[in-house]
Amino acid sequence: MSARLGVAVLGTAFMGRAHSSAWRNVGAVFPDTTPIDMRVLVGSDPDRTASAARTLGWQEASTDWREVIARTDVHIVDICTPGHLHAEMATAALEAGKHVLVEKPLATGLAEAERMVAAAEHAPGAAMLGFNYRRVPALALARRLVGEGRIGDVRTVRAAYLQDWLVDAAAPMTWRLRAETAGNGALGDLGSHAIDQIFAITGLRATGVRGTLRTFQRERQGPDGLEQVTVDDAAWAQLDLDGGAVASLEVSRVATGRKNGLSIELHGTDGAISFDLERLNELVVTDGRDAWPSRVLVTEPTHPYLDAWWPPGHVLGWDSTFTMQAADLLRSIAAGRAPEPSFADGLAVQRVLDAVERSDAADGARMPLDDHR
Amino acid sequence: MSARLGVAVLGTAFMGRAHSSAWRNVGAVFPDTTPIDMRVLVGSDPDRTASAARTLGWQEASTDWREVIARTDVHIVDICTPGHLHAEMATAALEAGKHVLVEKPLATGLAEAERMVAAAEHAPGAAMLGFNYRRVPALALARRLVGEGRIGDVRTVRAAYLQDWLVDAAAPMTWRLRAETAGNGALGDLGSHAIDQIFAITGLRATGVRGTLRTFQRERQGPDGLEQVTVDDAAWAQLDLDGGAVASLEVSRVATGRKNGLSIELHGTDGAISFDLERLNELVVTDGRDAWPSRVLVTEPTHPYLDAWWPPGHVLGWDSTFTMQAADLLRSIAAGRAPEPSFADGLAVQRVLDAVERSDAADGARMPLDDHR
Amino acid sequence: MSARLGVAVLGTAFMGRAHSSAWRNVGAVFPDTTPIDMRVLVGSDPDRTASAARTLGWQEASTDWREVIARTDVHIVDICTPGHLHAEMATAALEAGKHVLVEKPLATGLAEAERMVAAAEHAPGAAMLGFNYRRVPALALARRLVGEGRIGDVRTVRAAYLQDWLVDAAAPMTWRLRAETAGNGALGDLGSHAIDQIFAITGLRATGVRGTLRTFQRERQGPDGLEQVTVDDAAWAQLDLDGGAVASLEVSRVATGRKNGLSIELHGTDGAISFDLERLNELVVTDGRDAWPSRVLVTEPTHPYLDAWWPPGHVLGWDSTFTMQAADLLRSIAAGRAPEPSFADGLAVQRVLDAVERSDAADGARMPLDDHR
Amino acid sequence: MSARLGVAVLGTAFMGRAHSSAWRNVGAVFPDTTPIDMRVLVGSDPDRTASAARTLGWQEASTDWREVIARTDVHIVDICTPGHLHAEMATAALEAGKHVLVEKPLATGLAEAERMVAAAEHAPGAAMLGFNYRRVPALALARRLVGEGRIGDVRTVRAAYLQDWLVDAAAPMTWRLRAETAGNGALGDLGSHAIDQIFAITGLRATGVRGTLRTFQRERQGPDGLEQVTVDDAAWAQLDLDGGAVASLEVSRVATGRKNGLSIELHGTDGAISFDLERLNELVVTDGRDAWPSRVLVTEPTHPYLDAWWPPGHVLGWDSTFTMQAADLLRSIAAGRAPEPSFADGLAVQRVLDAVERSDAADGARMPLDDHR
Repeated sequence: MSARLGVAVLGTAFMGRAHSSAWRNVGAVFPDTTPIDMRVLVGSDPDRTASAARTLGWQEASTDWREVIARTDVHIVDICTPGHLHAEMATAALEAGKHVLVEKPLATGLAEAERMVAAAEHAPGAAMLGFNYRRVPALALARRLVGEGRIGDVRTVRAAYLQDWLVDAAAPMTWRLRAETAGNGALGDLGSHAIDQIFAITGLRATGVRGTLRTFQRERQGPDGLEQVTVDDAAWAQLDLDGGAVASLEVSRVATGRKNGLSIELHGTDGAISFDLERLNELVVTDGRDAWPSRVLVTEPTHPYLDAWWPPGHVLGWDSTFTMQAADLLRSIAAGRAPEPSFADGLAVQRVLDAVERSDAADGARMPLDDHR
Repeated sequence: MSARLGVAVLGTAFMGRAHSSAWRNVGAVFPDTTPIDMRVLVGSDPDRTASAARTLGWQEASTDWREVIARTDVHIVDICTPGHLHAEMATAALEAGKHVLVEKPLATGLAEAERMVAAAEHAPGAAMLGFNYRRVPALALARRLVGEGRIGDVRTVRAAYLQDWLVDAAAPMTWRLRAETAGNGALGDLGSHAIDQIFAITGLRATGVRGTLRTFQRERQGPDGLEQVTVDDAAWAQLDLDGGAVASLEVSRVATGRKNGLSIELHGTDGAISFDLERLNELVVTDGRDAWPSRVLVTEPTHPYLDAWWPPGHVLGWDSTFTMQAADLLRSIAAGRAPEPSFADGLAVQRVLDAVERSDAADGARMPLDDHR
Repeated sequence: MSARLGVAVLGTAFMGRAHSSAWRNVGAVFPDTTPIDMRVLVGSDPDRTASAARTLGWQEASTDWREVIARTDVHIVDICTPGHLHAEMATAALEAGKHVLVEKPLATGLAEAERMVAAAEHAPGAAMLGFNYRRVPALALARRLVGEGRIGDVRTVRAAYLQDWLVDAAAPMTWRLRAETAGNGALGDLGSHAIDQIFAITGLRATGVRGTLRTFQRERQGPDGLEQVTVDDAAWAQLDLDGGAVASLEVSRVATGRKNGLSIELHGTDGAISFDLERLNELVVTDGRDAWPSRVLVTEPTHPYLDAWWPPGHVLGWDSTFTMQAADLLRSIAAGRAPEPSFADGLAVQRVLDAVERSDAADGARMPLDDHR
Repeated sequence: MSARLGVAVLGTAFMGRAHSSAWRNVGAVFPDTTPIDMRVLVGSDPDRTASAARTLGWQEASTDWREVIARTDVHIVDICTPGHLHAEMATAALEAGKHVLVEKPLATGLAEAERMVAAAEHAPGAAMLGFNYRRVPALALARRLVGEGRIGDVRTVRAAYLQDWLVDAAAPMTWRLRAETAGNGALGDLGSHAIDQIFAITGLRATGVRGTLRTFQRERQGPDGLEQVTVDDAAWAQLDLDGGAVASLEVSRVATGRKNGLSIELHGTDGAISFDLERLNELVVTDGRDAWPSRVLVTEPTHPYLDAWWPPGHVLGWDSTFTMQAADLLRSIAAGRAPEPSFADGLAVQRVLDAVERSDAADGARMPLDDHR
């Protein structure tokens, strides 16, 4: 391995910008990580890609991702394109011997996801899935506390991810609202984050799933007139977890007044924890059966990742999660360790999404997830 | 009808005390209501009942409820005994021509509840069910705002009622944890309040129900050794409401750190509302699709019931809900109007509880509630 | 002393109603207290007093307070009249051998207050001042925790009492806005409660005071045209406390959006405590130098007064403080113990109010309070 | 002016790191700003500076600030050194024709600050003071709302800045606790931010000041034994503002449990606003005299600076304020406009700090600030 690692990002939209920010800052925040070079940004439009590359700090721009993954000065391929392109790009990059970071969702279907997991297993490079919320220090702290047994055995998890950007009936039709391009709606987009957190924090897997989907606004105005909305606006799921715990989940894009409301509440035999992404730097911890909920401002040097940032009380933003994700990938590569979350973690989430859809089609009946890993 | 109304309360425990407080204060807080006399408190133990009657403000004590409901100077019979006694006492009191207030739950089974509804329909007296949270001013305000269309059409309701008094594995076996005496566990005890609020605030009824029950601590120490716990510690339900709205519900007696956490969140096409019973005097209102959540301190004279109490900012306690409930009953009687909630409202809730149990037994499959009223 | 105690309340307005509620309920909530009889309610208007007596639960009504305090069946005289009547009534009642409860403020001036303290010292009966917030369970818990050293030595106290009922420039002139009838404005009305809490919770007294007064709306419409407002709308004070601690205080009647915002925050060498009256049942406790703020729902049986009320999580209202105050008075009488707060406690507060006014007149210069007790 | 601007940062500690982050990201977040080159980082230790320059993204490192400000490829000199070096460096850089950004505080004394203002007035380059909290979007929104008259005339401001890092009596002596090196304690370090916000948001200036200082821990362990602490641990101030408004301020480094608690509350004739830095992305707005406090999540594209960042609900961190500060400086330079806050704004704050110290020495008496601008 060369002393420095060359990085390419595929995708110039929202996620391309967020990942570029991570690569621009990772070395400054985490000086212990392997130095990287921001080699090339890949997009579809030559002018827009060149301009984005310039402002975002990339050395070069390209519109040919296949050429880019063939370059010997590119060691990490970071895939931020729409979901239906992930499988092809990631598989090719892994086969080319690159380290790969794929933005969530892993893929748009179960079969694709399984193929990607297989590819990752046989590839020499690292394969990481971009569930960036694993790097929210408060959520990482929640995971640490649960892992240490600080709330005892988890019995119930109450998760939700509520947004409101589709409340307006006049919001137009987009590719995100068509099943053929988006797979599903709120369920996959929002639910996948919440399900990954349930698994990550508790360390448990699902043995059965019940679910319901609902589309409230069944038609929206498209470029060529009124169109059918073919994905869900909201979804509900209930997961049986290993050992008897139960997790409930509600996701919605029509939850008026909520902007980015990923919340998770865990109740254990010896305590409880709750979190809300709109207050990203806080964790509410009930540390013992007779304790009261404490608001922890997760900015202390002893908290996950925080020794690298600012002094106590100086809060982090949403984009910092990508910087920490990049650092974790670099450290995994340096240590020759499989990064986390893996493609298999993404597949586990996708199996739940699939079971929710099957349960909804079966009027809510429980779908077992026997072979859940 | 005499100028004053004589009241008897049946039951001297927690609810007997709370209802006695209501009768002691209703005339002072609501001077417009018909004056009442606190005639007689009925209990099972003669000494304890006599002592309670003395401190709680009753003129007499009795251990014979049948004799009491036969008295001509008793016009209102307020039943605060355990649930399995409600049907017999309420039916007898209604047949004796009395006005009847029954503490929730209406009954322990569907058949009993149906009989009580029939009895109420044919009786000359008023029949009211004691879902006291209908009188929480913030919840009454929520209902008013939804009724006025202030949040548009309700699409999703997210309700929970979380307590933690059974978290301790050493908490002993009681009649509340045996199916034969308690019917069910958290589902009926906590869920009934939440379901009644869902119905009252939205004005909608359930057309279908999915549900799950879970008992985490399956054995507890009884007086004669380890016993099987035969009711649920926690329950989940999902209600399809008229017109396509969906309500989710989670109840638990093992939610570490929550003491009396009845929460309800409603998202509509034009706003949202949320409430938490631990902050009984507050309502969070998002008044419009582009508005932000406002914390309303529900203590203004324009808020429901509040003109009768104290100046703005002077908060009410949990026990005040019983005083308002008593006032509403007196006003209904004076106006010759059926009080609300009715026994039929209680039956509607009980049908949901029953459907949750059936759904749980059928692995979560949806139970239709065709004849839902 | 007779087995039962006869009570008379002087005053039928807001405070008369609140104190009547206390006497109506004290025996039911606190069955250990000496039984009382609600003998007579005293007001100025015969009809209104008679009607109020009836609804509030009094046996008789009267317009002659002197006659009432001469009655042998009246043992407790509870004075809820405007402040300028307190001295005469309380002194007369004490001289007549009665137990006396005086609603705050103790008096309208320092000289009067000193006379009342002297009268209380020589009287056989108990003399109690009605700072009802001493009975807010959360504030009583704060006092207990500080007294036990749980937050170490208190260094800074940050108190405020913010209301907004005078924000409207069109709010009319009343007796409360004239110096000759009200003494002062927000300073006395709101500040006195806050200062008493500072003293009660910390156990410290003031050795020096700085203060500022401000009247923002200098004229208001009276019955006969525009009138000068001669009291403060807002006030600021800073108290040097024994041993070097400092307390700051801000009070206002023009704090838009605050209804009854009495807040107090204490920082000690080993922890911190904060409270807001709009959330009367909560106390935020930072229990140790490295701890995080915990929200305590002050409804546990181990919390002050709470074993007498409802189960955990069932919150109390503002009016409950008067019931607890009455219970404490009855217990002091039964034990032959001087009740708390005493008239001397009221005088200590009044000395601070007086020093604030003198400091304001002296452009903010510090006024020493040498003889502070 | 060349097409690109060369930047030098003087200082490699906490603030040097934060400013480096700003320069590294400003072009990516705000592509409309003039492109910059991160020319040189200046520090005192050659090795440490070289290493910091490498990880933080600088082209070169230097230990000679005079040489650096003489370079023709450096156009912006960003001074992050300790306060007592600001005057000399800023004056020299301005005289060399550079644009200058000085981290707060402007200077350590009034005379120095006045000299710097004079230097800025006569210099061709821009001179900006680094009160970074002016760029907190929520505080910028507060200023916009107040400027638009949305809360009417401001009457009272209640500000505080509370931290707890000196609570521990064992915390060692440092240069920050010696008057000769630090000037003052919490007053200048924390108070300056709060005072600048009071001025910026209200648009008002101080006409008089009262103040108090307190040192609770008078001795701390230094390298050579116990030393006298010669600055304040906590301070209180009260500002008379133009037109009769009053602002109160409390700052502390011994406020147990508060990490970075800059809070500000404004009450106007037609509304109110409050903010807490520990919840940097939120603003509580009471929009009208009869409105209720709304929690605004300040992440909408219509909010200050936010169109450049992420979608609604994706919160920003503390360090983002420096990026926005850099963007504002670049835009001011491009427009030939004096940047804001100016050195004169810093002098206005310093005059208040000076008046607080004089008032404290005069036992709290009011110090007029006649020539306040």
